[in-house]
Amino acid sequence: MRTMTVIGTGLIGTSIALAVSGRGVRVFLTDRDPAAARTAAALGAGLARDPGETVDLAVIAVPPSHVGAVLTEAQERGLARAYTDVASVKAGPEQAALRRAPDPARYVGGHPLAGRERSGPLAARAELFRDRNWVLTPSRLTSDEAFERALELVALCAAVPVVMRSQDHDAAVAVTSHVPHLMASLMAARLTEGPAGLGRVAGQGLRDATRIAAGDSRLWGDILQANAPAVAGVLKDLHADLSRLVPAVDALTRAGGADRDLGMRTLVDLLDRGISGLAEIPAAGAGPQEGGQGVRVAVAERPGELARLLAAVADLGVATEDAAVETAAAGAGFTVRFGLPARTAEKVADALDAGGWTVVREDDERLLPMGEGQAVPGVPGR
Amino acid sequence: MRTMTVIGTGLIGTSIALAVSGRGVRVFLTDRDPAAARTAAALGAGLARDPGETVDLAVIAVPPSHVGAVLTEAQERGLARAYTDVASVKAGPEQAALRRAPDPARYVGGHPLAGRERSGPLAARAELFRDRNWVLTPSRLTSDEAFERALELVALCAAVPVVMRSQDHDAAVAVTSHVPHLMASLMAARLTEGPAGLGRVAGQGLRDATRIAAGDSRLWGDILQANAPAVAGVLKDLHADLSRLVPAVDALTRAGGADRDLGMRTLVDLLDRGISGLAEIPAAGAGPQEGGQGVRVAVAERPGELARLLAAVADLGVATEDAAVETAAAGAGFTVRFGLPARTAEKVADALDAGGWTVVREDDERLLPMGEGQAVPGVPGR
Repeated sequence: MRTMTVIGTGLIGTSIALAVSGRGVRVFLTDRDPAAARTAAALGAGLARDPGETVDLAVIAVPPSHVGAVLTEAQERGLARAYTDVASVKAGPEQAALRRAPDPARYVGGHPLAGRERSGPLAARAELFRDRNWVLTPSRLTSDEAFERALELVALCAAVPVVMRSQDHDAAVAVTSHVPHLMASLMAARLTEGPAGLGRVAGQGLRDATRIAAGDSRLWGDILQANAPAVAGVLKDLHADLSRLVPAVDALTRAGGADRDLGMRTLVDLLDRGISGLAEIPAAGAGPQEGGQGVRVAVAERPGELARLLAAVADLGVATEDAAVETAAAGAGFTVRFGLPARTAEKVADALDAGGWTVVREDDERLLPMGEGQAVPGVPGR
Repeated sequence: MRTMTVIGTGLIGTSIALAVSGRGVRVFLTDRDPAAARTAAALGAGLARDPGETVDLAVIAVPPSHVGAVLTEAQERGLARAYTDVASVKAGPEQAALRRAPDPARYVGGHPLAGRERSGPLAARAELFRDRNWVLTPSRLTSDEAFERALELVALCAAVPVVMRSQDHDAAVAVTSHVPHLMASLMAARLTEGPAGLGRVAGQGLRDATRIAAGDSRLWGDILQANAPAVAGVLKDLHADLSRLVPAVDALTRAGGADRDLGMRTLVDLLDRGISGLAEIPAAGAGPQEGGQGVRVAVAERPGELARLLAAVADLGVATEDAAVETAAAGAGFTVRFGLPARTAEKVADALDAGGWTVVREDDERLLPMGEGQAVPGVPGR
């Protein structure tokens, strides 16, 4: 790929332009807001003007509802040999391309799974997409050339290509992105009516749980509208769950009684279902479906011995989040299990061996999903 | 303080023991699960036995519903000269102390605003509480000596003491911690019924939004029960908001019409209320109510010039999250505003001055709350 045009120099469009122009591609930048295109150009993302020639690829980085019109207009003037977009909803743009675009074969839908709460070109990062999944949704008409151009774009951004049907993509992001955004907004909206002193007891947990609610409301309104059927379905399920939860928590406010026990069971069941659900989310940094492996290390029961092991493992650059004591029979010392990404387990085991630790390897185990660590002894109240 | 006993060597109890014993205090560790106390001792947190003498302070690190009984039992055998706890609910333990404990004057409630998803002593960190708020809730009977002992504990853990009435604390954490946990659980529970390919489109946003749902379900059941009245109140408000949201999103699935416009207005209004709510959360790293200060820098409109400024600021260790282009009149160059914590603004301004940049200082401004960055030009679809 020699030349590319980015239409829409917001966060995603400018980040793509920064990544690609850094790899030697000549990039042109346009935006309905000329100041945005000039800001992106000032960042070194490319040239803030129309190419004046047919480019190899046009990246349409505008909200979902605008993709169809922008694609049609661009194809009518022969802007590029291939077209893709980055909208987080894919069925609508695909239908628009098939129905209205002059040359739907030259278009393949795309959705890079990367973003930030900040919008606009100043928030852009050339590395935004590194090792992130980038979904491509070829239609029944998409040409091999258009698909290959999009794959080349994904590679230039150091992202991981994932191919899905547009409808499957939209059903999945409704659960993993769109409804979570609404839940975060609902929760954050409650803070506006919170009691005094709220800020003094707000911690990282709340910050993380509500962070995504910061996204631009008009852009998100557009995204949610474009995926409304799938979003409405998930919302209704959530509403049903919440409608069961409210009376359960209410019952806990009443002293004793059978409905109080039932309320607690309903509550703990929801909390446990939530923990199970977390296992569906790939671990950070891990590949989409990466497996894990366990390494067990025997530790003598001497003060500081466990700390020495955890320090030794930490020196290897391995997070000890998945460390769990498995046996602690009186006087018999401990066995500590580390759940590790498969690619690092061997390296860690060898290094611990060399360090004089007694190591037991396991094969083909899954990583401990987040939450299982609660099986570690020592949680009071058990 | 010379001696301390920690009752309950889970994540919080063991972290406190690690911090305090590191500061020269002789620490004793007990837990209803002897293996947990021995694990904590093996980490170097203290001695896994009863003190056999009256210690200066006893820290009760057990679930909320157990605090009253543990406090009463400990005071009956004269375990310590002062007592505090770390339960995330404070009114219940206070009432239990006033009603049942032999010497309520020696008790002051406490709640360190720190934690992790992992439970148990192995997850403990001596630095867990550094710079975190630690709420103390003295009752009408709490003695000065008990209060001062608790303040000493907070200082030894490098935390920031915050004094609140127990009822005010509970109302606030219902909004900032307990209901967010339930929302995260509700969302994560949906993932168990998600469509195929869900894992391929799950990103950091979902990971952060649901992270807190990983907390131990029995411990959290106990916490939520102990604060059920306040939690139920917030849940009902959320349920009402969601009951309005569902038909609004439903309306967006129907073509055109007035109710579709109304649906979009309802949706965007919720998203905007969420953004406003985020302003109630203190910025990460910032003190509880720390103000911010703005620094403006003029930039010539040359390719790479903005990038050079952002790099210069980054070299100063300042996040550029709050950078916003304010003016971009054609040819006139840019003015970039950085919202900075007050304590670093001067340093940054001076360094940029020295670096040859044209700097404009502001005084007594609030930090840009997260979300306002969306005012940056260049969001397509505006």
